[in-house]
Amino acid sequence: MINNKLPSNVAELPTPAPLVDAAILAANLARMAEAWPGERLRPHVKAHKCTELARHQRGVGHPGFTCATIREVEGMVAAGLGQDLLLANEVLDASRLGALVAAGARVTVAVDSPAIVDVAARAGLREVLIDVNVGLPRCGCSPDDAGALAELARGAGLEVRGVMGYEGHTMIVEDRADRARQVAESMALLERAHAAVGGPVRSAGGTGSWDLNFSATELQAGSYALMDTAYAALGLPFGPALSILATVISVNQGGWAVADCGLKALGMDHGNPSLADGSVVWFCSDEHVIFSPPEGGSLPQVGDQVRVLPAHVDPTMAYHERLYLVEDDRVLEAWPVDLRGW
Amino acid sequence: MINNKLPSNVAELPTPAPLVDAAILAANLARMAEAWPGERLRPHVKAHKCTELARHQRGVGHPGFTCATIREVEGMVAAGLGQDLLLANEVLDASRLGALVAAGARVTVAVDSPAIVDVAARAGLREVLIDVNVGLPRCGCSPDDAGALAELARGAGLEVRGVMGYEGHTMIVEDRADRARQVAESMALLERAHAAVGGPVRSAGGTGSWDLNFSATELQAGSYALMDTAYAALGLPFGPALSILATVISVNQGGWAVADCGLKALGMDHGNPSLADGSVVWFCSDEHVIFSPPEGGSLPQVGDQVRVLPAHVDPTMAYHERLYLVEDDRVLEAWPVDLRGW
Repeated sequence: MINNKLPSNVAELPTPAPLVDAAILAANLARMAEAWPGERLRPHVKAHKCTELARHQRGVGHPGFTCATIREVEGMVAAGLGQDLLLANEVLDASRLGALVAAGARVTVAVDSPAIVDVAARAGLREVLIDVNVGLPRCGCSPDDAGALAELARGAGLEVRGVMGYEGHTMIVEDRADRARQVAESMALLERAHAAVGGPVRSAGGTGSWDLNFSATELQAGSYALMDTAYAALGLPFGPALSILATVISVNQGGWAVADCGLKALGMDHGNPSLADGSVVWFCSDEHVIFSPPEGGSLPQVGDQVRVLPAHVDPTMAYHERLYLVEDDRVLEAWPVDLRGW
Repeated sequence: MINNKLPSNVAELPTPAPLVDAAILAANLARMAEAWPGERLRPHVKAHKCTELARHQRGVGHPGFTCATIREVEGMVAAGLGQDLLLANEVLDASRLGALVAAGARVTVAVDSPAIVDVAARAGLREVLIDVNVGLPRCGCSPDDAGALAELARGAGLEVRGVMGYEGHTMIVEDRADRARQVAESMALLERAHAAVGGPVRSAGGTGSWDLNFSATELQAGSYALMDTAYAALGLPFGPALSILATVISVNQGGWAVADCGLKALGMDHGNPSLADGSVVWFCSDEHVIFSPPEGGSLPQVGDQVRVLPAHVDPTMAYHERLYLVEDDRVLEAWPVDLRGW
């Protein structure tokens, strides 16, 4: 249970607690909006699951958003951010989306098969993008099938706004030249599909290709707002806005300490988190991170606070009920992470 | 958003959805209760975070429970299950626990340092266990310091019920003889500490040592109720009660399919999940598991349902709002996963 009264200092927060550095967040949003202004960026809310943060993204000029789940779409509409939402994923229980469209929200869905086109049409959706496989073995039809699928969708009464294709397999290619080449190959596939499909939209890309994707009419980047250590390894000009505040609960003179931020507070698919102070992470268990001080450093004391940097932002945010916007140690605001679940 | 009206068949559930097989759960609870009856088992609720499941554990005879967070303790008390709760973890913001004790709940906390003893005493807690490091580099004082810490606690007005020590490093040692030897070594350390501390309780163990720990007066097992693929690899006599129901949303004739159960529905620290039908899992992304059919099998169709077996139960449950108790494809009940958060 978290107090409703907002503490003024991070020292008073119950831990683990996600902290978002207000200045770094603002700089990240500004930097991306400069390169991809207005409608050219369609921020992906799956990376933060927070309508208040989305509102700040709209505040720097982006009217439309990308979602990964029906719940995210519903939450964005409920927050008054349903002007132009793309559900960049295939869904089968589309009746919940049809209800939103009937009530006035603009919701475009990705379709990659006749079955999904049929679902969209029967649910009362009006607009779709043809989802094209551009190299990541996940969703998306073959570029060769995109034109026929668009025909089918139009025949079912749907407006086809264009294509989307996520070059996700390129995002964490560390060598920049390799990444550039692979992005270009993926976008050549998407352009070929687009020529067969028509429509104004070619939606693609992410934080890892923000300055390498020269083909997308709109970029679906999400991680750039908060960042994580996996993306940080690419040397992108977006700062680590997110850390998880944790409290040291045990110190062993054998050379390690334990803080209260574990597997249930961190997305672990990209591996262990890091500590902001350079401590060496040994392992995590359900409610603990175990670490030793950096070379030459000394052990912390029970009660000290540490900041834990997650390896993967998206599944990290999905564990937390709220985040705290901070300026150094001062707590400015608490924002509900209100797009969780399905 | 999940309908309040409970569907009768799993085919109607929104996915991803955690399913708990009622018969396997009942068999797991019965098997453990036979070996560790009544107070000898103190089921760990961190493995399922569900008070309704805990109520079933009480139903087979266990009056006390183990918790890992303050929120778990609060939730168990609110559910009327606060007869004898052990918070098997060190905490610093103990005032919330003190309020529960003042209101009549029995809450024992783990202490492993003078600082934590001081916190417990000042928060109005009455009972503690001395937490002893028995080989897992995490919390716990040295066995050599346990007696002095117990003295300190008694001097601060706390009742010392005994010791606890979690031999977590032994839990997934695959070779049974190795595991047995390591458990015995850990318990020798705990017994030495116990001799210096006194009190009736020696709390230890988990699912992996359920038939190898001959020293614990009470076992803190949790995973045995639902199980996961990491524990299944040990060949324990507890069945896989938990699966995550997912829907196939995309099929590629290149040889793979995609279902809607990804990184935000699965604890990933023990690696990829498995599919109940033997399909080969390629990778997971935020909302997707990508897989190919088992040797000789054929691709599924869009709309088919699959059951995903998580590699680690605890961080998996922490992602879900509710679980569904099922008998084959029939939905019996929905249970809130109501102990999430901190």
